[in-house]
Amino acid sequence: MKHSPDLHGNAPDKSPLILLLIDVINDFEFEGAEALFANALPVAHKIAALKERASRAGVPVIYVNDNFGKWRSDFRNLVTHCIDDDTRGRPIVEMLKPARADYFVLKPKQSGFYSTTLDLLLQHFGATQLIMTGFTGDICVLFTAVEAHLRDYQLLIPADCVTSQNARENEQVLKYMERVLEADIRASNEIELSASELRSVPAA
Amino acid sequence: MKHSPDLHGNAPDKSPLILLLIDVINDFEFEGAEALFANALPVAHKIAALKERASRAGVPVIYVNDNFGKWRSDFRNLVTHCIDDDTRGRPIVEMLKPARADYFVLKPKQSGFYSTTLDLLLQHFGATQLIMTGFTGDICVLFTAVEAHLRDYQLLIPADCVTSQNARENEQVLKYMERVLEADIRASNEIELSASELRSVPAA
Amino acid sequence: MKHSPDLHGNAPDKSPLILLLIDVINDFEFEGAEALFANALPVAHKIAALKERASRAGVPVIYVNDNFGKWRSDFRNLVTHCIDDDTRGRPIVEMLKPARADYFVLKPKQSGFYSTTLDLLLQHFGATQLIMTGFTGDICVLFTAVEAHLRDYQLLIPADCVTSQNARENEQVLKYMERVLEADIRASNEIELSASELRSVPAA
Amino acid sequence: MKHSPDLHGNAPDKSPLILLLIDVINDFEFEGAEALFANALPVAHKIAALKERASRAGVPVIYVNDNFGKWRSDFRNLVTHCIDDDTRGRPIVEMLKPARADYFVLKPKQSGFYSTTLDLLLQHFGATQLIMTGFTGDICVLFTAVEAHLRDYQLLIPADCVTSQNARENEQVLKYMERVLEADIRASNEIELSASELRSVPAA
Repeated sequence: MKHSPDLHGNAPDKSPLILLLIDVINDFEFEGAEALFANALPVAHKIAALKERASRAGVPVIYVNDNFGKWRSDFRNLVTHCIDDDTRGRPIVEMLKPARADYFVLKPKQSGFYSTTLDLLLQHFGATQLIMTGFTGDICVLFTAVEAHLRDYQLLIPADCVTSQNARENEQVLKYMERVLEADIRASNEIELSASELRSVPAA
Repeated sequence: MKHSPDLHGNAPDKSPLILLLIDVINDFEFEGAEALFANALPVAHKIAALKERASRAGVPVIYVNDNFGKWRSDFRNLVTHCIDDDTRGRPIVEMLKPARADYFVLKPKQSGFYSTTLDLLLQHFGATQLIMTGFTGDICVLFTAVEAHLRDYQLLIPADCVTSQNARENEQVLKYMERVLEADIRASNEIELSASELRSVPAA
Repeated sequence: MKHSPDLHGNAPDKSPLILLLIDVINDFEFEGAEALFANALPVAHKIAALKERASRAGVPVIYVNDNFGKWRSDFRNLVTHCIDDDTRGRPIVEMLKPARADYFVLKPKQSGFYSTTLDLLLQHFGATQLIMTGFTGDICVLFTAVEAHLRDYQLLIPADCVTSQNARENEQVLKYMERVLEADIRASNEIELSASELRSVPAA
Repeated sequence: MKHSPDLHGNAPDKSPLILLLIDVINDFEFEGAEALFANALPVAHKIAALKERASRAGVPVIYVNDNFGKWRSDFRNLVTHCIDDDTRGRPIVEMLKPARADYFVLKPKQSGFYSTTLDLLLQHFGATQLIMTGFTGDICVLFTAVEAHLRDYQLLIPADCVTSQNARENEQVLKYMERVLEADIRASNEIELSASELRSVPAA
């Protein structure tokens, strides 16, 4: 309706650094989900700790999530479904439940950038550096990281905050992202966060 | 996570014809909204009647709406805000309240296609023809129609289901969309809808 | 192959202001082209003068042009075809022949932004302000201007450097771009250009 | 200017199957190119043979290439530069020189889809299946394959028509594309091509 140079309804937040949680809101009720869930649970603890630190440091958090609610229900409904319907994913979703201040972007496909508003949202934050976490490392995280690298975002993909169905494939994809996408894959507790600015521990 | 050739979470609906409601969920609490609301109220009645007929005919309805909730709240929350906070827009929002079966796409800017999942959603419906309705004709409807025409969608933009701040400018933009975008601008009651297929009254 | 944060092969040019020439390389051999050519010839003189001033001031020039060469031939070939085959468009193409330093973007549809590299090229220039010129005002110029406005570029669309098949429709579309897209439509000789920076004559 | 539902200037060709040659037109004059060239030369012979068969079968060929000519020069000029300036890449470029009937898309970044007209061109061909070949497997081929998979194209990536700086990494990325992108990586001589239609040898 009335238009300003801002995103319609965008928050005025500015931050060069953004934390992305990819596909963490999931009921884990699909075929093969049991094995993935076993890998994902300890990783979710790491993501939760990193998210807590990011929030304290004023680093905005964006949930980038499959919309398995069919473009008819909302992100908050996905959360409610995973918890209230007592799905396998419930312990992870409870641990990583979005706060009121968190942002979210629903994605129709594997990559967080494909046919979504993510890039525009990041531009309005003035983001230059993304911390990527979530599941699965070799599919949605890699696809999103490839498209982020195309757009010249610097990437931090902490190795302990990403998992896949298969541990060896997860390891390989992390190495690929380090080599080709120039991602920093240091462990999450080696990322130093402070007031909307990243001061990372220098690589040895 | 698990991926099929479908949109993640997309409904299996197929329909060559789709009804779009553009920016109808609005609190009309911005500057200059009073005049626009006066134009929009009778138009909302027409849209409501068309939507009712579309739903009965099995034509999917997509709300394409500004996200004035800052990418933190959901579309359903926008609806609740407009009604429960007793905003100026309440009568229109009550009339055009989305049903559970309706789809929605939140847009960050004027065009429904820019940085949204709309095009992909339409492709998965197999849509070739769009009925566009809503506010305002000379901004969000035109921008969305221009981008729809670029993508070769056929357009029906019923003149009685579109309005703008200024009646003459609304008239001009409708003529423009008819001439350049090859839109059919016949009145909504001259559009014949039936079971997921458009059988329009031939132009005289 | 080898990748830097730059566009592959992009020139290192930086400029907040860019001059766009839209669809000026044309053979004018389609139906109805005779009338348009009559309107376009005097406008081409104005564009040529503005281009000459832009080049002297270090403002990069981008040709944004239909690729009527079928994605098999090159932009330079289009130029050659228009001139060597002695087409109706020859006098305009000779006047507006690209220099070696000029850039070009081939577009598959009416808008210069749709499925092209234009936006990325503009981002790498650091462009914030675009001067748009060319044919036709009510189709390719408007479509490109709408998509530029969505991306928050400031627009200068000098009224004497744009034309359409019909003079009254051209006038209307210029007024629309002034009102809705906030374009400055002052005449080209009232735009003051100097060394990669716009110092425009203040509006009365 | 005049607009039809077709791509402006697009050829009328229709084909469900397309052969892509990624970054084969290269002068190999960058750092580290010597080792890559050694890997690429025998692969270029395989690509040339496949291209010859594709052309005979009526399968359109699209060159998807870095524009190291800075958006000022044309694709044909890139070819000329590589050959006439007697660059290291000359033997490969002579072998894979585009024919008049071939298409090309210049890409500004690693992926053939990012900020290019490739997807629209493929849509207008009615393409559903892509054969991808070229250099390097672990960067531009993978990036392009990821974005092709997002768009639901079926992929054939013959293992003998793709190479990278490092043989083991090339092997890994081929396995990744087979596993996650569901690419068929059979050798090029096991792909049966005939008149615009793929009849591939069934997998054992």
